[in-house]
Amino acid sequence: MTRSEIGVGLIGTGFMGKCHALAWNAVATTFGEARRPRLVHLAEANGELAAAKAAEFGFAKATADWRALVADPEVDVVSIAAPNPFHAEMAIAALEAGKHVWCEKPMATRREDAAAMREAARRAGTVAALGYNYIQNPAIRQMEALIAEGTIGTVNHVRLEMDEDFMADAAAPFAFKNGAESGYGALDDFAVHPLSILWRLAGPVAAVMAEQAQPYARREGRAVETHEIAMALLRLESGASGLLVANRAAWGRKGRIAVQVFGSEGTLAYDQERMNEFQLFTRDGDERLQGFRTVLTAPVHAPYGRFVPAPGHGLGFNDLKVIEAHELLAAIDDRPARLVDFDTGFAIEDAVHAMARSHRDRAWIDLA
Amino acid sequence: MTRSEIGVGLIGTGFMGKCHALAWNAVATTFGEARRPRLVHLAEANGELAAAKAAEFGFAKATADWRALVADPEVDVVSIAAPNPFHAEMAIAALEAGKHVWCEKPMATRREDAAAMREAARRAGTVAALGYNYIQNPAIRQMEALIAEGTIGTVNHVRLEMDEDFMADAAAPFAFKNGAESGYGALDDFAVHPLSILWRLAGPVAAVMAEQAQPYARREGRAVETHEIAMALLRLESGASGLLVANRAAWGRKGRIAVQVFGSEGTLAYDQERMNEFQLFTRDGDERLQGFRTVLTAPVHAPYGRFVPAPGHGLGFNDLKVIEAHELLAAIDDRPARLVDFDTGFAIEDAVHAMARSHRDRAWIDLA
Amino acid sequence: MTRSEIGVGLIGTGFMGKCHALAWNAVATTFGEARRPRLVHLAEANGELAAAKAAEFGFAKATADWRALVADPEVDVVSIAAPNPFHAEMAIAALEAGKHVWCEKPMATRREDAAAMREAARRAGTVAALGYNYIQNPAIRQMEALIAEGTIGTVNHVRLEMDEDFMADAAAPFAFKNGAESGYGALDDFAVHPLSILWRLAGPVAAVMAEQAQPYARREGRAVETHEIAMALLRLESGASGLLVANRAAWGRKGRIAVQVFGSEGTLAYDQERMNEFQLFTRDGDERLQGFRTVLTAPVHAPYGRFVPAPGHGLGFNDLKVIEAHELLAAIDDRPARLVDFDTGFAIEDAVHAMARSHRDRAWIDLA
Amino acid sequence: MTRSEIGVGLIGTGFMGKCHALAWNAVATTFGEARRPRLVHLAEANGELAAAKAAEFGFAKATADWRALVADPEVDVVSIAAPNPFHAEMAIAALEAGKHVWCEKPMATRREDAAAMREAARRAGTVAALGYNYIQNPAIRQMEALIAEGTIGTVNHVRLEMDEDFMADAAAPFAFKNGAESGYGALDDFAVHPLSILWRLAGPVAAVMAEQAQPYARREGRAVETHEIAMALLRLESGASGLLVANRAAWGRKGRIAVQVFGSEGTLAYDQERMNEFQLFTRDGDERLQGFRTVLTAPVHAPYGRFVPAPGHGLGFNDLKVIEAHELLAAIDDRPARLVDFDTGFAIEDAVHAMARSHRDRAWIDLA
Repeated sequence: MTRSEIGVGLIGTGFMGKCHALAWNAVATTFGEARRPRLVHLAEANGELAAAKAAEFGFAKATADWRALVADPEVDVVSIAAPNPFHAEMAIAALEAGKHVWCEKPMATRREDAAAMREAARRAGTVAALGYNYIQNPAIRQMEALIAEGTIGTVNHVRLEMDEDFMADAAAPFAFKNGAESGYGALDDFAVHPLSILWRLAGPVAAVMAEQAQPYARREGRAVETHEIAMALLRLESGASGLLVANRAAWGRKGRIAVQVFGSEGTLAYDQERMNEFQLFTRDGDERLQGFRTVLTAPVHAPYGRFVPAPGHGLGFNDLKVIEAHELLAAIDDRPARLVDFDTGFAIEDAVHAMARSHRDRAWIDLA
Repeated sequence: MTRSEIGVGLIGTGFMGKCHALAWNAVATTFGEARRPRLVHLAEANGELAAAKAAEFGFAKATADWRALVADPEVDVVSIAAPNPFHAEMAIAALEAGKHVWCEKPMATRREDAAAMREAARRAGTVAALGYNYIQNPAIRQMEALIAEGTIGTVNHVRLEMDEDFMADAAAPFAFKNGAESGYGALDDFAVHPLSILWRLAGPVAAVMAEQAQPYARREGRAVETHEIAMALLRLESGASGLLVANRAAWGRKGRIAVQVFGSEGTLAYDQERMNEFQLFTRDGDERLQGFRTVLTAPVHAPYGRFVPAPGHGLGFNDLKVIEAHELLAAIDDRPARLVDFDTGFAIEDAVHAMARSHRDRAWIDLA
Repeated sequence: MTRSEIGVGLIGTGFMGKCHALAWNAVATTFGEARRPRLVHLAEANGELAAAKAAEFGFAKATADWRALVADPEVDVVSIAAPNPFHAEMAIAALEAGKHVWCEKPMATRREDAAAMREAARRAGTVAALGYNYIQNPAIRQMEALIAEGTIGTVNHVRLEMDEDFMADAAAPFAFKNGAESGYGALDDFAVHPLSILWRLAGPVAAVMAEQAQPYARREGRAVETHEIAMALLRLESGASGLLVANRAAWGRKGRIAVQVFGSEGTLAYDQERMNEFQLFTRDGDERLQGFRTVLTAPVHAPYGRFVPAPGHGLGFNDLKVIEAHELLAAIDDRPARLVDFDTGFAIEDAVHAMARSHRDRAWIDLA
Repeated sequence: MTRSEIGVGLIGTGFMGKCHALAWNAVATTFGEARRPRLVHLAEANGELAAAKAAEFGFAKATADWRALVADPEVDVVSIAAPNPFHAEMAIAALEAGKHVWCEKPMATRREDAAAMREAARRAGTVAALGYNYIQNPAIRQMEALIAEGTIGTVNHVRLEMDEDFMADAAAPFAFKNGAESGYGALDDFAVHPLSILWRLAGPVAAVMAEQAQPYARREGRAVETHEIAMALLRLESGASGLLVANRAAWGRKGRIAVQVFGSEGTLAYDQERMNEFQLFTRDGDERLQGFRTVLTAPVHAPYGRFVPAPGHGLGFNDLKVIEAHELLAAIDDRPARLVDFDTGFAIEDAVHAMARSHRDRAWIDLA
C-alpha cells in the first residue's frame, strides 16, 4: 500500500453494509481525498455471499470469518455493519488489533457491552466512530452552526420525533424486533438517531421521564415484548426543556425525524423526509415580512458543494455516509472531524437505558 | 319578542366579545335559522365604551352593570366574554336567572370555581356551553367522523402541540400573564384548546405526567411566576398513549395547534395555521400510491357548505364561532348539538389541574 | 334614515347574493363603521324565495321585481348578484336612479354591454364597484405594498394560474356553462380573477397571445361550445413578461389561484387555496439563510386586525367580501378606497375579449 | 479486459464530468451489475488537471487529447461532459470509432450539428444516449407508469416550469451565457430538461407558440444577447394542450422543475426541488377524503430499492446519474433500457429551435 491509500475491511453486506461500500467507493471522487480507500477485504457470514458481494462492491478478498479480516495486515480501517449483537465483540477485536473502527449504531443492545466498547476505544488510540449519518446532513450542520452563532439566541426548548411505519401492520407476524432480545423497541432502535442530532444542536441530556407503549400487545397469539412507541420528557444540561417521541408503528411516516429547536431569538425546524431543506424563523427585521423560511441546501452549506455545485439539487441518504467516511478519514489523519465517537455514543445509549428505567419506575431519572 | 327570535345579551367587547357579536350577527344569514337572534343588551365595564360598542355591534341597549343584563327579561341567552376571573360569578348568576349561557373558555382559573359552575349548570336545566371554537372546524368534525367510522382503525397514539409567540420576546415587560394570579401559564391558557380537540377525537384522559418550563425566569427584574412551556405524557381512557405540549414563547408560531392521531389502519394530521385542510394516510390500496393526502374542506364536510358552496374556498377563525352559535341554538331548541358543555369543560380543566400537580410532585397522576 | 345609516338593496340570493348579505350584516361590527348598513330591500326572481331569504338575511322588504328595488327611495346602494346576463341592465338602471352600485364580476358577457356599464358609471357620479373580492385579501394587499415599496425590485415576470375541477368530470351532463351563451369558458369565467390581482400587483396588460382548449369535445352527444382551458402569453405595459392559465377541469384543484411575481431583488408567491399566507424570497442578507419565507397574515397586515387581533388565526373567503363592503362604504363617503371600479373592470374584460380574438386569429393582439 | 468488465473513458471533469465519474464508481455496487466498469482513460483540456482528476476519480490513464482517449482500444464507452460546443465533434468521432457514447445534454447549440450527431448514431449501431438524468428519478418513472396505466385517465393538459436564479442578479458581470454564442438562453439551456420529462409523460410536441424575454437588457454596458426567460404555448401530438416556461433569473428558485399533468381522471404534480416525492389526485372513492396525496418514493418505486431498502429515505441528484449509467449498461447489453437516445434528443432540440423561430416570427410553428 502506498502512502496515499488506506486499506478498508467491511463486515456485513445488508442495508448498512452496502451503504458503507457505496461510501468507500465514492469518497475519493467526491472529496478529492489525499488518501484513496483500497477495498481490501469483505466479511459476510455466508462465504458464497461474501464472494459475490466482494465482486459487486469491488473488494479484493472475501471471507466468512470476520476474524480473518480483522487480522488482515492490509486492513487499516474496519467498517462494522453486522447485526447489532455482534458489534461489541467485533469492534473490540478490531480496536485491539490496532485498526480504526467505523461501527454502525447502536454500539450494543446491553449497556455493559457499550461500556466495554468505550473502554476499548479509549485504550486503543485509533479512531473509533459510530454511524450516525443523519448528523452529516449539510442541513443539520448548518443548523448546528446557526445555533452556535446565536442566530436563534439561547435554546430553551427542543422537540424530537422519529416515526416510521414498518411495525404499523397489526396483522404482521411476530418478528425478531418484537422479542426482548432485540432491545426495548422504538427506544433504542429509533430514539438514538434524534438524540444524536440533539447532542449536536443542544448538548447532552441531564434528566429523563419516559413512557413506552404497545399499539399491539400480541402478534400471532404471542405477547409482544418490545414497545413500538417511546416518549420522554427531557431536561438538558443547558437547562432547556425537551420532548422526544419515537414510533415504529406510525402509518404513513417513512423516514420522519422531525426536529424543532426553539430559542430566545428564533426557531429552527427540520424533517428528514425532506432532508434537503430546513426551516428558520428569526424575529428580527420588518414584522410584516417575518415567517418561517425554507432554506434549500446549497454549496454555501458545506460540504454540499462537493456533491453538486448548483444549489437546491439535492443530496440523498447514501451521500450522508460519504460525508461520514470523509470525516472518518480526516480523523484518521488527525485533522478536525465531526463524528460521534464511542464516548458520545455511549452517553446517547446511556440516556436510552435511563429512559427504560424511568418507564419501569414511573419516575424521573437523573443522568450521571 | 316573536316566536322566531331569541334575545341575546353579551358581556365583554374585547377579542372574544367582538367574535361573539360577529357570530350573533351572522348565524341566521349563514344557517337560515328558524330563530333569528335579536341583539338586546350589551355589557362592558366602561359605560361609554358599552354604548359605543352597542352601536357598532348592533345591540339595542348598553350597560356598565352586567347584572342588569342578566336580569333583563328580554335576554334569553348570555354570551360571557369578560376576563376569565369573572366567568364563574357571571355564569352562575345567568344560569340562576334561567338564562342559557355561552361562556368563553376556560371556565375559571380555580378548580373549585369551575366545579361550582358545573353544579349551577346541572341545577339550571338551561343550556350551558363553552367557547371551544376550534372543535367546530369542519376539518376537525370530519376527522372525528372518520375516526368514528374506523377509517384509521383503532387509535393508539396521539400528539398535540399548541404554539404561539406572544410571550417569546425575552425583553418584553412583566405582564399580567406572567403573574401567578393569571393561572399556570401555557398549561391552562393554551393546553385546554388541544385537549378539547383530543376529547372529541380520542376521548378522555386517564393519567398525566407533566412538566413545565420557563424560558425566561425574570422580566423587568421580577421573577416570572407562570410557565410559558408545558409538556405532558398522557394515558387515555381508551388505552392510547399521548403527548401534549404547549408553548407561548415559540418564535414564529402564530396559531399552531398541531394534531397527529395514529391508528391501526392510518393516520390523521391537522394544523390550525392551515385550518382549511387536514392530512389523511390510509394503508389500503396500491402501495405505490400511498401517501398523506391533503384534504381541503368543502361542502361535503358539513357545515362548510353553509358558508361557501364551492370547495376549497376557505373558512376563517370567526366562522367557527358562527358554527358554535348555530350549535348553541340547536341545543336551546332541544335538537342534537355538538358543544363542550360544563361537564366536559370541567373534565378538561380538571386534567389541567392534575398536570400542575404532576409537575409539582414529579409523578404520574391518575384522573378520577 | 339617519345620517349614520345607509340603505342597502340586494338583487340575487345565490352563492354571491348570500355572500353580499353576510358582508352587509358584518361590516359595521367588524370595522366599527360610522355608517351602519340598513338592510332595506331584497329582490329575487321568485317572490316566495325573496320573502324567505329576506327573513333569513335580515332585509325588511322583499320583491320579485328588481326594478321596484332600484326605485325604492330608501335604497342608497344596490348589490347586484343576479346571473351575469342581467348585470348590465340592472347596473345601468341603478346608476341612472342615482344609486351606488356594487356589482359582481364579470360586468357582462358581451364587450359592448360592459362598455355601456362603464359609460353609465362615468355619467352617474355615484360609486360603481365590482366584486373582485380576492384583491381584498390582506395577503394580496401586503404583496401589493411590498412591490410598491421595492422589496422585490422591478417586476420582470409574472405567472398566474386559476384552477378548479367542477368541469373535470368527462361524464357530467351538458350544462349551461358548456353553451356559447355563457361566454368563452375558463377565459371569462376564471381568468378575470387572476387578472384583477395582476392589475393590482403589476399593472395593465399591453398585448396577449392566447390559446383555448377543450378537454372534452362533447357532452351527452352534444358539442361543447366553451373551452375549459385558456392559456395566454402576456406582455405588460411595464414591459414585464407574463403567463396566464385557467382550467375549470383541473382535477383536485378547488380554489387555486396561484400567483408568482418575479422581480430584480426577489420573488413573491401566493396560492388562494392557502389564502392566509404568502411566500417571499429576497436576495439580501446572509446567503446561507436565504429561502422562501411563509408569511402568515396578521394584524400588521391591515385590515386583518379588524377580524382577529391575534396573528395567524385565519380569515375566510366571506371575510374578503366584508373588506370589500368596507372599501365601498369608504368610497361612498369620499374616502380613499381600494376597489375595482367600472373603468378598470372594463379594461380587465377587454383583455379577455382580446384573448378570445387572439385564439381565433392565432396571433398576438395589442390592447389599445 | 475480462468479459465482466467494460472500459470507460471520460471527457471533461467539471460539474457533469464529476457526476459521470461518481456514477461509474457507484453503478456496480448499487445495481450488482454483471459488468463492472473499469475506469480506463480520462481527458481534460489541461493535462495537469487531467492527471490530478484521474487520481481523484480513479481512472488509470489521463490525457489532454480527447482524440487519444477515443482511439484507446481499452475504452468501450465514452462519457462526454465537455462544454456543449464540443459535443458534436467528440460524439461523432467516438461513434465512428465504434464506441458507445453517453453525452451530456444538449447535443449541440446548432440544429445542424445535432442532426449530424443523430445521423452518426444511426450509422454506428452502438449505443448513443444523452444525459437527461431527471427522467431517471423513480418519482418520474412512477408518474410515467401511472399515466400509462390510466390512473389519471387521458392526459389533456400539461404545465412545465423550470426556474433557477443564477442569472437573477442584475448587477452581475456579462458572462459567457449572456452571449449569442452560448445559445438562446433559458430556451435551450433549461427548457430541454422539462421537455425530456414531457416526452416521457405525454409524448411529442406538435406545435409551439413561444416568446422570450430579457429581465436585464444590459450587463456592464453591453447588450445581453440571450433571453433569461422563455415561455411557450404547446400543442402535443396527442391533442393535449400545454404550457412551458423557463427562467434563469427567478430569485429563490434553485432547481425547480415543476410539472403538472392533468387528465380526465386525476392529476399528477412534481417539483424537482423536492425530488423524492410526487403528488397525485384521483377522483375516485369517498369524496370527503379526496385530496392530493404526497407519495414519498420507496422500494416499490424501482429502482429506488437498489439505493436504500427503506422507504422515504431519499435519493439525491447524483443517484439519478447512477440509474442512467445502469440503463446505459443495459442498452449496451441489448437489454431493454429507458434512455433518451439521439433520435428523441434531436426531436427535443428541434422543438426548442422551433420555439426560437416562433418567437422571432410571432407565430405558431408546426413541428414536422
